[in-house]
Amino acid sequence: MEGHDARSPDPRRHVVILGGGFGGLAVAHGLADTDARITLVDRRNHHLFQPLLYQVATAGLSAPSIAAPLRQILRKQANVTVLMDEALSVDLELRRVKLALGELHYDVLVVATGATHAYFGHDAWERYAPGLKTLDDAFTIRRRVLLAFERAEREDDPAQRQAWLNLVVVGGGATGVELAGTLAEIARHTLPREFRRADPRQANVLLVEAGPRLLPALDPSLSDKARRQLEKLGVEVRLNTPVTAIDDQGVMLGDTPYAARTVLWGAGVAASPLGRTLGAPVDRAGRVLVEPDLSLPGHPEVFVIGDLASVTQPDGRPVPGVAPAAKQMGRQVAATLKARWRGDTTPRPFRYRDDGSLATIGRMAAVAQFGRLKLSGLLAWWVWLIAHIAFLIGFRNRLVVMLDWAWAYWTYQRHARIVTGTDAPPQAASRLPRDP
Amino acid sequence: MEGHDARSPDPRRHVVILGGGFGGLAVAHGLADTDARITLVDRRNHHLFQPLLYQVATAGLSAPSIAAPLRQILRKQANVTVLMDEALSVDLELRRVKLALGELHYDVLVVATGATHAYFGHDAWERYAPGLKTLDDAFTIRRRVLLAFERAEREDDPAQRQAWLNLVVVGGGATGVELAGTLAEIARHTLPREFRRADPRQANVLLVEAGPRLLPALDPSLSDKARRQLEKLGVEVRLNTPVTAIDDQGVMLGDTPYAARTVLWGAGVAASPLGRTLGAPVDRAGRVLVEPDLSLPGHPEVFVIGDLASVTQPDGRPVPGVAPAAKQMGRQVAATLKARWRGDTTPRPFRYRDDGSLATIGRMAAVAQFGRLKLSGLLAWWVWLIAHIAFLIGFRNRLVVMLDWAWAYWTYQRHARIVTGTDAPPQAASRLPRDP
Repeated sequence: MEGHDARSPDPRRHVVILGGGFGGLAVAHGLADTDARITLVDRRNHHLFQPLLYQVATAGLSAPSIAAPLRQILRKQANVTVLMDEALSVDLELRRVKLALGELHYDVLVVATGATHAYFGHDAWERYAPGLKTLDDAFTIRRRVLLAFERAEREDDPAQRQAWLNLVVVGGGATGVELAGTLAEIARHTLPREFRRADPRQANVLLVEAGPRLLPALDPSLSDKARRQLEKLGVEVRLNTPVTAIDDQGVMLGDTPYAARTVLWGAGVAASPLGRTLGAPVDRAGRVLVEPDLSLPGHPEVFVIGDLASVTQPDGRPVPGVAPAAKQMGRQVAATLKARWRGDTTPRPFRYRDDGSLATIGRMAAVAQFGRLKLSGLLAWWVWLIAHIAFLIGFRNRLVVMLDWAWAYWTYQRHARIVTGTDAPPQAASRLPRDP
Repeated sequence: MEGHDARSPDPRRHVVILGGGFGGLAVAHGLADTDARITLVDRRNHHLFQPLLYQVATAGLSAPSIAAPLRQILRKQANVTVLMDEALSVDLELRRVKLALGELHYDVLVVATGATHAYFGHDAWERYAPGLKTLDDAFTIRRRVLLAFERAEREDDPAQRQAWLNLVVVGGGATGVELAGTLAEIARHTLPREFRRADPRQANVLLVEAGPRLLPALDPSLSDKARRQLEKLGVEVRLNTPVTAIDDQGVMLGDTPYAARTVLWGAGVAASPLGRTLGAPVDRAGRVLVEPDLSLPGHPEVFVIGDLASVTQPDGRPVPGVAPAAKQMGRQVAATLKARWRGDTTPRPFRYRDDGSLATIGRMAAVAQFGRLKLSGLLAWWVWLIAHIAFLIGFRNRLVVMLDWAWAYWTYQRHARIVTGTDAPPQAASRLPRDP
């Protein structure tokens, strides 16, 4: 294939980036002013602003508000070619990436394929408890939640009806907290006047966390504040409570069954399977243990960044799997490459700059931590809102998202309560369709 | 089931409306000030503004911009219960509707389940040439079109590449004209700078019509203007050209094969299958031949309205299957019922008031006909734009749709170019999911 063939006569260095998330895009942008030839491969056609994905799942935003075509983002950067394809494996010796539809030779490889949800060996749970990593995941959750209320409205048996009105969120990290808070808001404020038989206010939103506190990445005082804000919104929080089974009737909390027809998964994260094909040691979640400069041990021409990389900070704490860390890694790789190409091979260990952590809980409720400064409640929510809208890619998106939020704020309406599609197996949605 | 049980002790008249489109909603709204008990059944949870559906298919609008939850639309009308369910058949003797999840007894029944696309006996074509009636249809078309350009970018063989860049639209009615014009615009203006190997400007959009002119519902002079506007946009229009075969490699135009990996269907319309279960005569498309007052022959308590009804105007012309006609029929049925309940049983034959016909062709191009007044080009486009945005349900939608249009107008960008999901069989998407 001309332009990305192993035998291409193009004399420029070829940088192949796998993954168009925050990390991969930061590398491409960082190399805009070089003469490198860049190929960015993603199995989806869009970059996704994952921090707001829970809003698509809970019908507050439509998909195009938080996603933008990779081609559109990169259209002005002439040294980038975008390929919609799936990377299957890497041949480190021959410097080739095998794709579903072809093959690419690289001079430099950046692997930034991220993470997906993990069920800790209970893969059968995925059917009953969808996780939230892609737009298709968000549509599945939206459909399940909206149809649960529809089914409750049709149910004569009070116990069965309540099982449709019981919603369980597994996992007390940011995703679980955001989903639980928003679901409680929908049940209490958005839906009540719309049903004639079932009362959405009878819905129970249960947030289950195996560990001793919510949001373990934040300061314990904020974990406690988050729990109290959730409880004020009507969420029941159970800490130190492991989920031991999930099926279509509900969950087992330790030895106690809890009837719930809707279970959402915010618990585990596993790195992209591509990490394990690189031959380097990986941690328990499948993240690649990289050198301090983010390169693959023994392969200075290969970098692993973002959620797929396991990096330890000088203070011994791991770099968290968040968007700012992925962006910083991407910028660092671009800087390392530019220095190398100038002849400067000084090693540059990656240092994570913590710009703060935020988690939103519901309408006007959030927690935030910036170094020693800790915020919660209304002020944290405003900081969260402004930070997230400011980082959205594309002016139009920012405008529409602001409009949507203002609308939802004043009316309690969530405009994207549209059920489409049917439940397809989630793994099918993550492959490039062979069409037609 | 209490509230909609055959043995309900509720003494109020029970009006059951099947279908939450323009017709069904008009009946519900028209009976707001009565003491009738109304149950509105739809297999989807949303009302769809179908005149703008082609904009979702061509990535100009997101789904929630043109769809609103039925419960939200009707939440303030306390005498309406909304059920998300599918009507399977009607027992006219016992006055019962069989639903997928239950049964309803009615005193008055309004059947407004609309139409779907028809393949004139070639059901196998549906796989290769999706039609456009639902949001899921629109997502399928969006995915096929966007992936065709992705595949063209990956194709080495020039003939194969061109087959991915050839797009065929079958049928020269409003849907076909709108799709063809917008696709040409996307190929010429939206995509060119985003691809490095295939040139989207090499795309051919072919609009094929078996009859002698486009937009047969309009005046012949406008058909001709529409053809010329399409050709100016780069669409190749072939009239008097029957499609005799469709498969995954292209179409047969009479005896001539035309290679195209993307074929879209805008040709045939068939009435909802529920029409044939009513025992009354139907026309060739399955539309029910109703009495002048829109009631079912021999059953004054049953009405059939909208695209499912075959009504002839006094001048012998059929009432067209358009949104304004469905709304007028719905209002008429509500008025008839209210008169009857007052004791006034004067027959009220339905008269269609033609407020004009519009079809948009592309950016700044449209044709319009209001009685003897005929417009085309820029002025017609403005009339079309204002009329469509004005009729959108919900203030927020109107605002967002205007914003989207202004954005697309100035930038040529189409923000919803997001590929999600995989190709599920279209018929699967139209059934209520049994969840999980």
